[in-house]
Amino acid sequence: MKRIESVVLAADLAGTAVFAFEGALAAMHGGLDLLGVMVLSFVVALGGGVIRDLLIGATPPNAVRDWRYPVLAFATGLLTFVFHGAARELPPLLVTTLDSAGLALFAVAGAQKALNFGIGPFIATLMGTVTGVGGGVIRDLLLARVPSVLVTDIYASAAFVGGVALVAARRFEVPPVATALLSGAVCFVLRMLAVTHGWQLPKAAM
Amino acid sequence: MKRIESVVLAADLAGTAVFAFEGALAAMHGGLDLLGVMVLSFVVALGGGVIRDLLIGATPPNAVRDWRYPVLAFATGLLTFVFHGAARELPPLLVTTLDSAGLALFAVAGAQKALNFGIGPFIATLMGTVTGVGGGVIRDLLLARVPSVLVTDIYASAAFVGGVALVAARRFEVPPVATALLSGAVCFVLRMLAVTHGWQLPKAAM
Amino acid sequence: MKRIESVVLAADLAGTAVFAFEGALAAMHGGLDLLGVMVLSFVVALGGGVIRDLLIGATPPNAVRDWRYPVLAFATGLLTFVFHGAARELPPLLVTTLDSAGLALFAVAGAQKALNFGIGPFIATLMGTVTGVGGGVIRDLLLARVPSVLVTDIYASAAFVGGVALVAARRFEVPPVATALLSGAVCFVLRMLAVTHGWQLPKAAM
Repeated sequence: MKRIESVVLAADLAGTAVFAFEGALAAMHGGLDLLGVMVLSFVVALGGGVIRDLLIGATPPNAVRDWRYPVLAFATGLLTFVFHGAARELPPLLVTTLDSAGLALFAVAGAQKALNFGIGPFIATLMGTVTGVGGGVIRDLLLARVPSVLVTDIYASAAFVGGVALVAARRFEVPPVATALLSGAVCFVLRMLAVTHGWQLPKAAM
Repeated sequence: MKRIESVVLAADLAGTAVFAFEGALAAMHGGLDLLGVMVLSFVVALGGGVIRDLLIGATPPNAVRDWRYPVLAFATGLLTFVFHGAARELPPLLVTTLDSAGLALFAVAGAQKALNFGIGPFIATLMGTVTGVGGGVIRDLLLARVPSVLVTDIYASAAFVGGVALVAARRFEVPPVATALLSGAVCFVLRMLAVTHGWQLPKAAM
Repeated sequence: MKRIESVVLAADLAGTAVFAFEGALAAMHGGLDLLGVMVLSFVVALGGGVIRDLLIGATPPNAVRDWRYPVLAFATGLLTFVFHGAARELPPLLVTTLDSAGLALFAVAGAQKALNFGIGPFIATLMGTVTGVGGGVIRDLLLARVPSVLVTDIYASAAFVGGVALVAARRFEVPPVATALLSGAVCFVLRMLAVTHGWQLPKAAM
């Protein structure tokens, strides 16, 4: 059991670092200064979880309760700022793969936490989606642009489907570890397929 | 008593559907995809109530606790998306009338809920206003534009005056049902008069 | 002890009025109507404290619990609107000095409140920073622009350093009043030096 907990914590910290790295990149592209880079690292990595925790009544949110998360986000932001030349050179497919893994992790862990707090399955799935995409939405708001997740791409939808898989697997009493791996894989694969095949949701012309 | 509760619930669900419909229209006008339409339906219908509940300490907020509200908002968004041709044909005065009714309902119910949670009358009136206009403010933030409610029109002001009427009626011990109808009517009539007469709040030239 | 409490309350109300005044000016510059002026007065003065209180679990937030704060913010906004000709004539250095004093006060009081709620020193320092700059960030979001605090200037950084000074002084068991004055002075002086010398944080070219 101890070992599973360590794996979950390590995965959570890894996802936080990936999202913080992406937040720092977005901040530098947007012309923000060092403080803006640190703030976007924090917000992209932890904003979704903070919104989820406020909504399900888990206050103070994890990112406020446990100093390791903000410290990791800020350290990642600072390193990305200092080594931004190298950061720019990372292959896009690697970044997409890491981002999809982070999305899957956050969506599944977020839905699981909501279920643990007694939230019903449908809204827990929404809370997982919020955990996965909330940070990116705040990032876009802070950069004064329409959140990309609302306009284009299969991203939040992949997180939602991952949450549905989680709820379904629990209903069929799949063991916890298999449930987490399965629903995370559903989200990850759907997101990667959407990127590589250019899948989009429909729009209505007005 | 049962019957009054049913009427209140029906009115609340009707208001949710009206606001969700308007959120979906705004999303399609803004070029969002299907997910964006669903999100804006949710946010416009339920965002004001979520902010109110977080501020008065009623967590988890109603929209997270009761699955009927998000399901109704999403279903309305989906239907509006599918039948967007018909949605465009609705007469503007009908939409304005339904919207004013929704505003009145949300403002009065929101102020009432804040009073029930022990919030003082002045701030309860503000909380009613937030319930009525909060969803529209988040909609405009997500569309990366200045919230229209801050720039133009008698809208939040009508919600505020409705809340003042509620507090006054309670002070004079008007029976609950009459209080709700009276204060809702004040908000509704003020908003309709403002639209039909083009009333505006003053601005200061800087 | 009574006397200290009165001084703290008076300082807090003075800081609220200064920030509300600045919010009203920003609203009028942004072309908002009277309601927009009132909302930005409220948001700039009290938004940072509301975010802090939600994050540390102190609900309902102070601004919702105590009617004196919103009334003061709205009254300041209204007066600034009515006398906007005179407001425009205030010397910029006076406004900067008052704003720096308000920032120092909010940052130190915010970090102190977080410590009182059992939040660890690092995150308490962040909460102080959020108290000081949160209102300005919401102001910029409502005006649909990138928060200035993320792009330019030593502002949030001064609030953060003030919080660090507070935590350090408490560790060395400096008496409470001296701790508050010292850490507030650190924030204030750093901010004033940054303005007068044009200090900026670095940026990374992407």
